[in-house]
Amino acid sequence: MVNYPNRKANPISIHTPMKPKHYTSHRGMSLEEDISFSNDYYLLNDKAVIYKKPTPVQIVKVDYPKRSAAKIVEAYYRKPSTTDYNGIYRGKYIDFEAKECKNDRFPFANIYKHQIDHLKRIIDHGGIAFVIIAFTHRNEVYLIDASFMIDAYYHSDRKSITYDEIKEKGHIIKQGVNPRLSYLDVIDKYYF
Amino acid sequence: MVNYPNRKANPISIHTPMKPKHYTSHRGMSLEEDISFSNDYYLLNDKAVIYKKPTPVQIVKVDYPKRSAAKIVEAYYRKPSTTDYNGIYRGKYIDFEAKECKNDRFPFANIYKHQIDHLKRIIDHGGIAFVIIAFTHRNEVYLIDASFMIDAYYHSDRKSITYDEIKEKGHIIKQGVNPRLSYLDVIDKYYF
Repeated sequence: MVNYPNRKANPISIHTPMKPKHYTSHRGMSLEEDISFSNDYYLLNDKAVIYKKPTPVQIVKVDYPKRSAAKIVEAYYRKPSTTDYNGIYRGKYIDFEAKECKNDRFPFANIYKHQIDHLKRIIDHGGIAFVIIAFTHRNEVYLIDASFMIDAYYHSDRKSITYDEIKEKGHIIKQGVNPRLSYLDVIDKYYF
Repeated sequence: MVNYPNRKANPISIHTPMKPKHYTSHRGMSLEEDISFSNDYYLLNDKAVIYKKPTPVQIVKVDYPKRSAAKIVEAYYRKPSTTDYNGIYRGKYIDFEAKECKNDRFPFANIYKHQIDHLKRIIDHGGIAFVIIAFTHRNEVYLIDASFMIDAYYHSDRKSITYDEIKEKGHIIKQGVNPRLSYLDVIDKYYF
């Protein structure tokens, strides 16, 4: 199987991808997989059209072997310009980033400043912007409005947000079989 | 400079990228570059938040040389799941594909069936969906609503749409210095 080792690119060096983590160890699923499966479910049931953007890669060298596929032989991970997910739900533009935490803190180092600014822009233009945060050791997943993240990022001396704050200001996402993460239910309740 | 050889992936084999074409030979700019510069302009002027999605790449092998960037040493182009561009404008979800034609026909072979279906879904969910088509030999660029493309794709025996039809059903996009392609003006006029 294909491995995507740059899921959690370190913001200090864009070329040093971190290893993927599993927030639901009993199922061996990553947050990204759960969101992808949920998006597939929503798409199939014609509820929403939301996709993960491809991993940005800077292609340097491509070989064209005869009679076979063009093969990229030198490429590097690039810093994403925006967030990982966007799409449309109930006529509204939806935009979000998804992050896993392995303890009771979400460090701001886990999100790029330009991603925070992007989320701010989406709100200003009338879209729905949020962050999905999975606390892997608790097996809890929260949806938190981007305005809270932006505010905490810019108007605080701290370098992280705590689990307690996210629990207070955010909304827990119900986990199930299909969809695995019913995050549209949270949007229905708090954005419409 | 980095080369992106898969801009026009052949729909028959996703792994045989076609060479990029230039629709404005006097400037040496591709349609994609012009749209990117226009999107940068719109972003900078806080008019819209519209991005091109990264080229989808299937990563097979990554080297981690000591003290340097993770290097992708084997990867392949993948078929895009959706269209190339999406974002938000005046509170509305925007989604489009951009294509160059070197003669007076737009062949349906230039667009994937699942991209047509994606555009249909966007309309059904209340978004604005269209295709930008550049006739390179004429140096003319048109915005055509996705509904026309979907209709022609599904309810016609032909394998292409002609320049005359696009001229009649679409809207010419003004070219300039900044933005290079004023496609939001067309949206203002025909979608709001």
